[in-house]
Amino acid sequence: MMTIGIIGLGLMGGSLGIALQACDPTYQIIGLDHNDLHCSQALELGLVDRIAPDMETIRDCDVIFLAIPVDGIITALQTLKGVKPECTIIDLGSTKAKIVASVPPLIRKNFVAAHPMTGTEKFGPSAAVEGLYREKVVVLCNLEESGEHQQKTALKLFREIGMKIVFMGANEHDRHAAFISHMPHALSYSLANAVMRQEEPKSITALAGGGFRDMSRIAKSSPDMWEDVFRQNKTNLLLAIDHFNEELEKCRQMVEEEEWDALNSWMQDANKLHDIL
Amino acid sequence: MMTIGIIGLGLMGGSLGIALQACDPTYQIIGLDHNDLHCSQALELGLVDRIAPDMETIRDCDVIFLAIPVDGIITALQTLKGVKPECTIIDLGSTKAKIVASVPPLIRKNFVAAHPMTGTEKFGPSAAVEGLYREKVVVLCNLEESGEHQQKTALKLFREIGMKIVFMGANEHDRHAAFISHMPHALSYSLANAVMRQEEPKSITALAGGGFRDMSRIAKSSPDMWEDVFRQNKTNLLLAIDHFNEELEKCRQMVEEEEWDALNSWMQDANKLHDIL
Repeated sequence: MMTIGIIGLGLMGGSLGIALQACDPTYQIIGLDHNDLHCSQALELGLVDRIAPDMETIRDCDVIFLAIPVDGIITALQTLKGVKPECTIIDLGSTKAKIVASVPPLIRKNFVAAHPMTGTEKFGPSAAVEGLYREKVVVLCNLEESGEHQQKTALKLFREIGMKIVFMGANEHDRHAAFISHMPHALSYSLANAVMRQEEPKSITALAGGGFRDMSRIAKSSPDMWEDVFRQNKTNLLLAIDHFNEELEKCRQMVEEEEWDALNSWMQDANKLHDIL
Repeated sequence: MMTIGIIGLGLMGGSLGIALQACDPTYQIIGLDHNDLHCSQALELGLVDRIAPDMETIRDCDVIFLAIPVDGIITALQTLKGVKPECTIIDLGSTKAKIVASVPPLIRKNFVAAHPMTGTEKFGPSAAVEGLYREKVVVLCNLEESGEHQQKTALKLFREIGMKIVFMGANEHDRHAAFISHMPHALSYSLANAVMRQEEPKSITALAGGGFRDMSRIAKSSPDMWEDVFRQNKTNLLLAIDHFNEELEKCRQMVEEEEWDALNSWMQDANKLHDIL
């Protein structure tokens, strides 16, 4: 039997509860969320086996997942200093460098830094879905700083829920995540706001096809979660936005100057993404 | 019996052939494409009933669809002056103002300007799919300039393939399409190029989740098609890019200046897209 505590019962934590329950019937999944409504919804939806009456119950678990916004992870880690030596604490935050740097030395071996590259724009317990983690990539950062038992436990659990594991340093992760996830969120929010601030946004969105729907989907993501991510990965995010701006400005200039052949080959360059994605 | 000619047998024309064949067994679907390989592929895939031996065969059709890049539409319209009085010519281009302005007065009543708000990033006959048009919006522009018979024919056919019809002036269409489709394509191409120009694009794309896949999907679209669209809708596209840039610059500044509350409420504004899309 293994007791697994999940702090945060939204999209990520709730979907994890569903996934872990399906792996092994002896896993005891115990949830906790600062929002009481989320706790009762999670129980009702069967995302967890039971709700922890207090933080002490979570601290006693064999494994603790932190499925909360990234600033909350840093705060929560401070309250987990009393865990047992064999306990494995795994965070699921979208940033890694500031979180890894914040881990109290006393529990550094207990801690495993993870970023599952999956999600949807929805949030809260009702957003939890079966299969969210299956066949998706999880990045494990600075794994050599985690204890041997904790490394094994994290690898075992992520493999059991069907994830593909990638290893990376926390700084490298944050640079890459800025390009692949954080900056694209900034673009999507900007696109949505550009349309919403027009005189007749409804006349515009009445014409929305698949392209706009895809580009604006993540603009529906949780501001509370993404404010934290943008704060923690500020430098890399700004750098990624600069690189994006450089390309959009090239495009704008080629259109303005009517350099159509150059525009066509710039578009062909973008097509090459095909080959690696 | 109705003979329907389709010029251009790629994603849009090919999918239209499939859709029309399913509507009425008496429709004779006759295809034409300047690329011989596309003609044989379209025949093999059953997208059309037969290939026109020459342009004359198309000119004799009851209905002619132009499913080619928007500059090609303008050229093709010049060659269609000899159609019979009852012929209905319908273009499927992503821009409307320049096309409508280019229609020879002799066939203005024959012509119906349409923009189906659907597609995928794929192109060529092999990209054609069943159901591409079903439940999607088609914008008909300046319909009052088309003949009564032609209006009825276009409405009947678009309804038969399951489309929702929206009416709009060509200039208004082009302004809206710049925001909902053309500028988002510029963003997606820019995002793809920003990543591709990094030192290790593969290490970055290895982390791609659904968000990046969605945001970069349309960066795989045909450069030949989109070069034409950007050229024809230059002014509106540049304006839409400016509006987007204004929002992204706000975002960048709030992150740089660490105005987190303002960032959070800006993200909440973007969330409101939910309510109208």
